[in-house]
Parts: sequence; C-alpha cells; structure tokens
Amino acid sequence: AEGPAPDNAADASPIFGVTIPAGYKQWELIAPAEEAPPLDELRAVVGNQTAIDAYQAGKLPFPDGTILVKRAWKRKQSPEFASATVPGVATTVQVMVKDSKKYAATGGWGFGRFIDGKPVDAAQHRTCWGCHEARAKSHDYVFTRLAP
Amino acid sequence: AEGPAPDNAADASPIFGVTIPAGYKQWELIAPAEEAPPLDELRAVVGNQTAIDAYQAGKLPFPDGTILVKRAWKRKQSPEFASATVPGVATTVQVMVKDSKKYAATGGWGFGRFIDGKPVDAAQHRTCWGCHEARAKSHDYVFTRLAP
Ligand code: HEC
Ligand code: HEC
Repeated sequence: AEGPAPDNAADASPIFGVTIPAGYKQWELIAPAEEAPPLDELRAVVGNQTAIDAYQAGKLPFPDGTILVKRAWKRKQSPEFASATVPGVATTVQVMVKDSKKYAATGGWGFGRFIDGKPVDAAQHRTCWGCHEARAKSHDYVFTRLAP
Repeated sequence: AEGPAPDNAADASPIFGVTIPAGYKQWELIAPAEEAPPLDELRAVVGNQTAIDAYQAGKLPFPDGTILVKRAWKRKQSPEFASATVPGVATTVQVMVKDSKKYAATGGWGFGRFIDGKPVDAAQHRTCWGCHEARAKSHDYVFTRLAP
C-alpha cells in the first residue's frame, strides 16, 4: 500500500502522470489545515512512510519515493455543537510524488489534483509548480510541517 | 501499538484511569475539525483499528476495545500563505476508551484529557460525560463522523 496505484492513463494527471496512491487514507497524519473562504475548506495532509521518516529526521530535500496527499472537504458547522466546524463534502485529493529525475524540471515533484477520483485538466496542473516554487522553496517546495 | 500504554498511576486520568495509547500518532484519521475562538483550535480525531472497522461498517455502539484520540493545536496563520491556517502549539490530547463493563456508568466510555502528557484534574474529567451524553447520544456519545 506504499506505492502509487498501477498507472492507468485515464486516472493519471496530465503533464505529470501522477495517480492517487492506494491506501492513502491509512497513512499517518502530517497536519490538518484550514483554508479561508471562498474555498472554505478543512484539509488534512498525510504521507507515506518515506515521507514520515523524512519529516521525523528533519531531512530535506525529501527523498525519492516520498508521496504526500492532501485531502480536502468543504467546512460545515457541526449539527451538534455550534462552535465546531467539521468536514462536509469531499472536494479534491491532491498528490505530490518525489522523483528527482522524472520531475527534474519541477523541483523533483510530480503533481496531481483529483475530483471524484478523476484528474483535473492540464491548465490546472500548470499552476501547481508556480505556487509551490514561489512560496515553499526553503522547505523543498512543501508547505506543510509535521504537527507537534 | 493498539492497546493503551501500561497503566502508570501518575499518567492515568482521574476517575477513569485512562492513559495515552502508544502509537496513536500512527492511527488512521477519522476527521479533522476546527473549534472557534476562544479555544481557537485545529483538531484531528484518529482511531485504533477497532474504531476504524466500526466506522467503516457503520456499527453502533462501538465495540469494547475502541479507542479514539483527539489531537488539538492552537490555530496559526500560515507564514507562507495568508488564507491558510495551520497547527500552532499542541494544546491537549483527549482519549475515549470503550469498555462497556468498566465504564458502564458513562455509556461504556472512559475519558482522559492530557496536557504535555499529564492528565488534567478530576474536576475537568467530571465534565466529559455530561457534554457527550447530552449532545452525541444518537451516535454512541461520539461526535466525530468518518470524513468522506
Ligand atoms: C495558489 C497557491 C497554490 C497552488 C496553485 C497549488 N498549491 Fe498546493 N498547496 C498550497 C498551500 C498553501 C499548501 C499548504 C496546505 C494548505 O493550505 O492547504 C499546499 C499544499 C499542497 C499539498 C500538501 C503538501 C504541501 O506542500 O503542504 C499538496 C499535495 C499540494 N498542495 C498539491 C498541489 C497540486 C497538485 C496543485 C495543482 C493542481 C497545487 N498544489 C497547486 C498552495 C498552492
Ligand atoms: C462542552 C462540550 C464538551 C465537553 C465538556 C467535552 N467534550 Fe469531548 N467533544 C466535544 C465535541 C463537540 C467533540 C467533537 C470534535 C470537536 O469539535 O473537537 C468532542 C470530541 C471528543 C473526542 C473525539 C471523539 C468524539 O466524540 O468526537 C474525544 C476523545 C473527546 N471529545 C474527549 C473528551 C474528554 C476526555 C473530555 C473531558 C475531559 C471531553 N471530551 C469533554 C464536546 C465536549
């Protein structure tokens, strides 16, 4: 359950050929996050064992084989407790895969964004690297830190 | 890594004798959550395999041996991305353990709240059951649903 799922062209992201890795829901939590409106989401970033080992060792850059998955849901008020916000509908699953040779042009990272299991279009995939490069360069283009 | 850590009186919660289970950071995510100010927290509820199996089967009440852990952090604005909120300092670790005989008086649940690994006082532990009983009775006193 550590590697990417078998490549299936229809389920792989354009440009990068990244797929949703099998078993990612079982992976260890790196950190939750929240995104303000208009996206208005709760998020959780999880990682495979290679990712977790690198985080725990404080090792940068992340080694080849690292996979990070960000799950996201619309924010919803808890019906039982007004001050609590909980996950509503799932929105996207986003994936970053480290392969320093294959993805040399994008910092060693391949990107995939999926809605209902299907990759979004190439235009959206052209935006990933620009943002991660501009804002998260000092941390190997990864925003999320291991939650204490 | 499934069971509670060996009982150590100093590290067990008053009233219930609940301890922080070993290896809980590796457990599967059930859902993230957010709590408005003044608590102003990001949270993540994880569960042991017994818990996850019950969630996936939609099985209520949760079986004996279920352990749920809620991790919590102060909310902090991401230094790299203004609209993102990420975990700040860790605040509490809260635990619910199902043992229908031992905890028959509180719906089968034992409670523990820990700060820096140490249980808080008995007065705080007297509040847990009242709130979970009043507001989450229809879901075996557990608020959190499995995130889709
Ligand atoms: C406008 C900025 C921006 C763009 C564009 C963007 N991201 Fe991100 N990404 C972020 C931020 C900020 C985070 C940190 C977590 C959060 O706030 O959700 C993040 C986190 C992630 C993570 C978790 C690992 C990490 O770096 O924290 C993955 C995986 C990810 N993005 C994939 C993608 C993919 C795939 C695309 C393109 C389809 C993409 N991102 C486009 C800003 C962006
Ligand atoms: C005033 C209401 C209230 C009190 C008091 C309270 N809780 Fe909760 N608890 C909640 C809510 C609401 C959630 C749902 C998740 C969230 O919003 O953080 C929750 C979630 C939890 C969870 C995750 C499982 C679930 O039910 O979702 C644990 C574990 C937990 N609480 C333990 C405790 C312990 C231990 C105490 C006492 C020391 C306690 N709680 C007192 C309201 C309360």
